[in-house]
Amino acid sequence: MIKIAVLGHGVVGSGTVELFLKNKASIEKRAGRPIELGYILDIREFPNVPYADKFVKSVDDILSDKEVKAVAECMGGVGKAYEFTRKFLENGVSVVTSNKELVATHGAELISLAKAHGCNYKFEASVGGGIPIIRPLHHCLAANEITGVAGILNGTTNFILTKMFTEQMSFEDALKMAQELGYAEKDPTADVEGDDACRKICILASLAFGKHVYPESVHTEGISAVTKADVEYAESWGGKVKLIGRAEKLPNGKLYIMVAPSFVPTGNLLADITDVFNGIMVFGDAIDRVMFYGRGAGKFPTASAVVADIIDVVKLSGPSVSLSWADSAQDFIADCKECETALYVRADCNSLDEARESLSETFCKPVFLCRENAPANEIAFIVPKEKESVIFEKLNKLSGKISVKNTIRIFDV
Amino acid sequence: MIKIAVLGHGVVGSGTVELFLKNKASIEKRAGRPIELGYILDIREFPNVPYADKFVKSVDDILSDKEVKAVAECMGGVGKAYEFTRKFLENGVSVVTSNKELVATHGAELISLAKAHGCNYKFEASVGGGIPIIRPLHHCLAANEITGVAGILNGTTNFILTKMFTEQMSFEDALKMAQELGYAEKDPTADVEGDDACRKICILASLAFGKHVYPESVHTEGISAVTKADVEYAESWGGKVKLIGRAEKLPNGKLYIMVAPSFVPTGNLLADITDVFNGIMVFGDAIDRVMFYGRGAGKFPTASAVVADIIDVVKLSGPSVSLSWADSAQDFIADCKECETALYVRADCNSLDEARESLSETFCKPVFLCRENAPANEIAFIVPKEKESVIFEKLNKLSGKISVKNTIRIFDV
Repeated sequence: MIKIAVLGHGVVGSGTVELFLKNKASIEKRAGRPIELGYILDIREFPNVPYADKFVKSVDDILSDKEVKAVAECMGGVGKAYEFTRKFLENGVSVVTSNKELVATHGAELISLAKAHGCNYKFEASVGGGIPIIRPLHHCLAANEITGVAGILNGTTNFILTKMFTEQMSFEDALKMAQELGYAEKDPTADVEGDDACRKICILASLAFGKHVYPESVHTEGISAVTKADVEYAESWGGKVKLIGRAEKLPNGKLYIMVAPSFVPTGNLLADITDVFNGIMVFGDAIDRVMFYGRGAGKFPTASAVVADIIDVVKLSGPSVSLSWADSAQDFIADCKECETALYVRADCNSLDEARESLSETFCKPVFLCRENAPANEIAFIVPKEKESVIFEKLNKLSGKISVKNTIRIFDV
Repeated sequence: MIKIAVLGHGVVGSGTVELFLKNKASIEKRAGRPIELGYILDIREFPNVPYADKFVKSVDDILSDKEVKAVAECMGGVGKAYEFTRKFLENGVSVVTSNKELVATHGAELISLAKAHGCNYKFEASVGGGIPIIRPLHHCLAANEITGVAGILNGTTNFILTKMFTEQMSFEDALKMAQELGYAEKDPTADVEGDDACRKICILASLAFGKHVYPESVHTEGISAVTKADVEYAESWGGKVKLIGRAEKLPNGKLYIMVAPSFVPTGNLLADITDVFNGIMVFGDAIDRVMFYGRGAGKFPTASAVVADIIDVVKLSGPSVSLSWADSAQDFIADCKECETALYVRADCNSLDEARESLSETFCKPVFLCRENAPANEIAFIVPKEKESVIFEKLNKLSGKISVKNTIRIFDV
């Protein structure tokens, strides 16, 4: 008999408890031993749930019970969650979590703390909700040298961009709808400005390439500057605008990593991922590419990943050797501006003909795009692949002829 | 130090050896210990490969070396491969394999043989090539009650159907192209008639639902009867024709399982999977749905899965508790004819008007389809969901008015 505890009884915590109790028999069969839900930590009262007798208000009640072998941290944030996680790991109790902020901020430290104390720190639920990605990445694809990871990592922004595409909604209206449906928070900044996706690509990159990548090191752009016009130009170009988190090993050994809205061509499966779904592509020397798709958030999908990690740590007799990365200076992160990209540009101009002529002289075969009912002074085009800083220098030199309104990178892998 | 051996130096066997040697350092790091390639079994001579000294012609040379802890069976077929696999497992040596025929035919027996001798039998490479699916299904999704599995499991037929759709090729021309490109065998029966996909859905269903499903129990149709006309009608309906392998737990506890060409609506990601790629959807009570996508065949993708399994068995100290299913009588397989489906029908008729009138009287709101340049006596329509046997009875009664040329089920999950 093994006891587990759940820290926090919010959306993910209550989902974890409910899912565990619902599928307890098959979960125990898969874990190979009986598992008892010992405690739920929450300062709030939940008198009406059938497992009301499990609640405790102090973490010490759990720490003092030596039968507790695994804890699911579903609190979120980096304050108490960090403090409690450390305490359990230092006591040799494995911790599994859905807390992407904590993993992205302190992952390297917590993994090595777990190792030092003969237990595990696992975080399948921190990226992609119910989509298996962490375990496949370090386990199923272990024979590969991973060369890149890229994906749609945030469901809220994908919902907004989908509505902008399929129903011609403005960003503001689509965001409002997402809020009404409960997909976006009242303060949507973390989703809309790319911070959530940034934490996730940090976790994926750290695992894929073996060195901790901190969120502050990653160039991050959100989708609040994306307009209906951009979405329409993407369609006429033959694709869609998606918020892509990506990390790629460059030939010079550095890491190209960013979160940014991107034009994704039709034919790339990421372009076909709609609504709140997530999709994560992994590139490796043997597999070419694989993609993992599913619900990237939500009570039960996320709980599914948390409980799978619980089963895993219950089965493991010692620390996992492969799920880890080293802490690191951030000097291996490439400067995006010094890397090559193709770029979509939307601009205003005085004369379309004049602007086209200048652009064709400046860039090697720019592709001009059109859309219905475009203002007469609007011009949009795709600049072929070149160093980003050079593209912007050239655009600057044309500032007398065009006034750039928005630019979006092309995702072409 | 652990020794491994590879049985068979064909496409997958040589890929396994090459990939192992190429990424040896990182593979050993992930396995947590040094691994040496001890032997390659093949009756043929390979004097020019850099590892020529590893070849042996008798399996006894490998069996007698007690340092060999894991063997990759890449021979294929159920003759010698079955015999050798049994021998190694009986000696407590774990076996990993890409041999779907063997797993589909003798999986339950070999898994229990492994368990009895304290070792493992693993087969990630038997389904989906380089796509992680076996491990995610029994491991990452372990918190779920799996309710269904469905996917595009054969790359050759998906290539043919893609060419029929995008380039309006006939089945025969597309098959010829697939053969020229090396995607289809000279005798393409196993791919084209659905046998390969059938073995794979048997393996997935056995694992998902815990009872061995034998290929003979599964209703299997290939794609050789699919015409350009059917592909065009699918497009006008709003989807594509795909060869779908599917297994679904019915409310009565029985298993609905089949391999058959199917109309898949746009919006279902399986419709967007093109060329030789595979995609496998898993449905569970917590995750809703997840999909795994990638190259379902090929030397290095398949080798990637074989080597991942090698790493896995090298890390495991005893038999895996969760990767298993029981042998079974096949009485839990539902009769497809007694299950409900919506159905596409293409038929010839004497009079379109008369046929339409009769069909509208017979079926509840059939949807009539059209295509460019259809012969004047051709009629195509979708019959809404009803018991299959009832649909065919009704169609039979209309045999004076229409002559059915082809029918294809609708995949609507």
